[in-house]
Amino acid sequence: MPHLPAAGGGRVTRPRVVVVGAGFGGLCVARHLAGKPVDVTVVDRNNFHQFLPLLYQVATCGLNAADVAYPVRGIVRDHANVRFRHGTVTAVDWERRVVAVEDGELAFDHLVVAAGATADFFGIDGAAEHSLPLYTLQDAVALRNHVLGRFEAADADPALVEDGALTFVVAGGGATGVEVAGALVELFDVVLRRDFPDLEVERARVVLVEMGDDLLPPFTGPSRTVARSTLEDRGVEVRTGQAVVAVEPTRVRLRSGEAIAAHTLVWGAGVRAGTLADVLAASGVPVGRGGRIAVEPSLRIPGHPEAFAIGDIAATADGRGGFLPGVAQVAMQGGKHVAGEILGAIEGRPPRSFRYHDKGSMATIGRRAAVAEVPLPFRRTLRLRGTLGWLAWLGLHLLYLIGFRNRLSVLLNWAWNYATWDRGPRLIFGSRPRR
Amino acid sequence: MPHLPAAGGGRVTRPRVVVVGAGFGGLCVARHLAGKPVDVTVVDRNNFHQFLPLLYQVATCGLNAADVAYPVRGIVRDHANVRFRHGTVTAVDWERRVVAVEDGELAFDHLVVAAGATADFFGIDGAAEHSLPLYTLQDAVALRNHVLGRFEAADADPALVEDGALTFVVAGGGATGVEVAGALVELFDVVLRRDFPDLEVERARVVLVEMGDDLLPPFTGPSRTVARSTLEDRGVEVRTGQAVVAVEPTRVRLRSGEAIAAHTLVWGAGVRAGTLADVLAASGVPVGRGGRIAVEPSLRIPGHPEAFAIGDIAATADGRGGFLPGVAQVAMQGGKHVAGEILGAIEGRPPRSFRYHDKGSMATIGRRAAVAEVPLPFRRTLRLRGTLGWLAWLGLHLLYLIGFRNRLSVLLNWAWNYATWDRGPRLIFGSRPRR
Repeated sequence: MPHLPAAGGGRVTRPRVVVVGAGFGGLCVARHLAGKPVDVTVVDRNNFHQFLPLLYQVATCGLNAADVAYPVRGIVRDHANVRFRHGTVTAVDWERRVVAVEDGELAFDHLVVAAGATADFFGIDGAAEHSLPLYTLQDAVALRNHVLGRFEAADADPALVEDGALTFVVAGGGATGVEVAGALVELFDVVLRRDFPDLEVERARVVLVEMGDDLLPPFTGPSRTVARSTLEDRGVEVRTGQAVVAVEPTRVRLRSGEAIAAHTLVWGAGVRAGTLADVLAASGVPVGRGGRIAVEPSLRIPGHPEAFAIGDIAATADGRGGFLPGVAQVAMQGGKHVAGEILGAIEGRPPRSFRYHDKGSMATIGRRAAVAEVPLPFRRTLRLRGTLGWLAWLGLHLLYLIGFRNRLSVLLNWAWNYATWDRGPRLIFGSRPRR
Repeated sequence: MPHLPAAGGGRVTRPRVVVVGAGFGGLCVARHLAGKPVDVTVVDRNNFHQFLPLLYQVATCGLNAADVAYPVRGIVRDHANVRFRHGTVTAVDWERRVVAVEDGELAFDHLVVAAGATADFFGIDGAAEHSLPLYTLQDAVALRNHVLGRFEAADADPALVEDGALTFVVAGGGATGVEVAGALVELFDVVLRRDFPDLEVERARVVLVEMGDDLLPPFTGPSRTVARSTLEDRGVEVRTGQAVVAVEPTRVRLRSGEAIAAHTLVWGAGVRAGTLADVLAASGVPVGRGGRIAVEPSLRIPGHPEAFAIGDIAATADGRGGFLPGVAQVAMQGGKHVAGEILGAIEGRPPRSFRYHDKGSMATIGRRAAVAEVPLPFRRTLRLRGTLGWLAWLGLHLLYLIGFRNRLSVLLNWAWNYATWDRGPRLIFGSRPRR
């Protein structure tokens, strides 16, 4: 059997921390344990970190896949006590304190479960088979290939337009749905109209379906109104108070009874905890809504004081009876807290409760259009919109993109798109299209 | 059934030219027919042009996949009389003058077959199943994923090094083999040594196997000697006068009887004409070595004066009893000639013979090391090597890369690699690994 890790040059007396997942949460744990007296192993099924907030840009030809992915080894290699292991964690043996990966085991003294989420189709008929989620880089590339493939098919046989080849339904009016819908109409208007001169691209439709009464639930009323009217001005058909009830290859059925002829349903309606949470639930770990691990206030997994769960795989109480949203900030702040808890446990310090500091929310709608809200003291909120909101969004995302080179490449792509009204990365490549 | 193309706004009286393949040859035909009194349709199975001379850079993490691919619609959309059709040509009906694609037909008055080549395994036992060719972008991404995957596997289980996980055999001492071998040792030395601190990366081997007595057959003696000694100085084991006779998942067997423990065989030993040539051969078109279409001196397909074949799918006589090599220059000059022939035929001009102008050869071995030869008047040859050869190679490839944006991105990647001794695009993504 393969070896157990002896990271840190054989000093096996140092506590071993295994971090499952190299997303925002997992990497934050590793970063805050760098240079500390522990040996850290980050394990992920991909050898790269995915910058999830920009996946919709890959899906709509704004960025290349490589622009939003960064090799984990390139991130951790400057830290002598942090190692990477490429693999999928399939089980946790709490007795022996090892996690199983496909081809071996990793022993731990402290465990951090930060394995993320997966699309939740809520059992809707046909949704898992016929819709395109947007939670992984593979999802984003598959969606890009599918969108471009539908335009190619309609160009070869214009009768397909009537059948829904150029109708794109987006389920879910949260940030993902709003961003995808806005980016799609922009892609059609700005790029594909010129790429497909023989096609009536103005017949392409984007329909955004949201169950609630309003888009962007985490935002306040004024921002929601701006988002909706901006989307509608740009040609998105917004259907609130409406829901998808069944999905077929070329039809999307709504609760109202309407059947939309559409070859594409983008699934932005919700996520549930990743499969590792199901595995842990089977071993007795309590889980809540969407299969998320119901962590203690210190982010520990109940019954396992040496183990933590953070980010999208955890149900983290917000202290007001609800749960924190599945955003990067929650995962990152959780990661920092857990790193402190692990060092505290080693020093014999008692657990501390996690406190989340809301730094605000942003959603972009397209070229020079975004909404942003930043909490201010005295329960006031700073609201940005239009060009100012868009510039704030741009700067913040560049700031957080890991790695100087990726930032440069992203900036180059965006500057090019902005200046030329063009998109470079419109390749049908790297993931088999659905049809 | 889907429509026949009526490109150019329904002026169906204009001669229709169908160009099969958007490689160097096909795009050159389109470019030289742009603005002329013909309607051109370029058809390709990919919606992008692949810059084949740089695939080895994608395979060795020097460039992103998107850096060497450019959407065909972005290239042709400025020309009102040039259209693109996404699809694979499966047959040619000479009687009705139509080519069949998966979901329809394209009618032609003039046909240009520029569909390229595919790896030729010469019937060697196990080669098709267990070796990794390098002729398409998909091949390059698959090779990159495989190489990185072998390092990850060896890191998880060091016993695999003995089994050949880090031994990379390259078959073929032409430009592809030399460039891959040089780029692999550089990737190991410069990047993976730092990425895998627990692994004895110095045990990684690259073995270059060439059947002939020397590397780089198109070059003169002095350049060949430089190439070989540079590769050997950098750690490549060069085996000339040797051949691969059988391939197994973890073993490469040579003619000498030696079995090299290697999980990887890169296939750079030869190509044959693409499958469309086989289809045409079945319809009576004469083919030569490697299934290549045996074209007339005017590059016409014998028996079909309205049809031409250019580039790697054609066997083009060099006028000295041999055939022109499968390089971009031959395809591009062939494309320009064929565009002239088509316009000449429309004007009633008799066929002219194609004459190839050799502009020289280049092969790069790695950081600041390349060989280049440029023919001069009076049968003299300008030879460049080392840094000068490398700079010439760099400039020429940038010059020929289609699209300003790709050039910028490539330059950025190269500048980054050169300045930091690092490689960004080392993702395991986009093509299922072989193991």
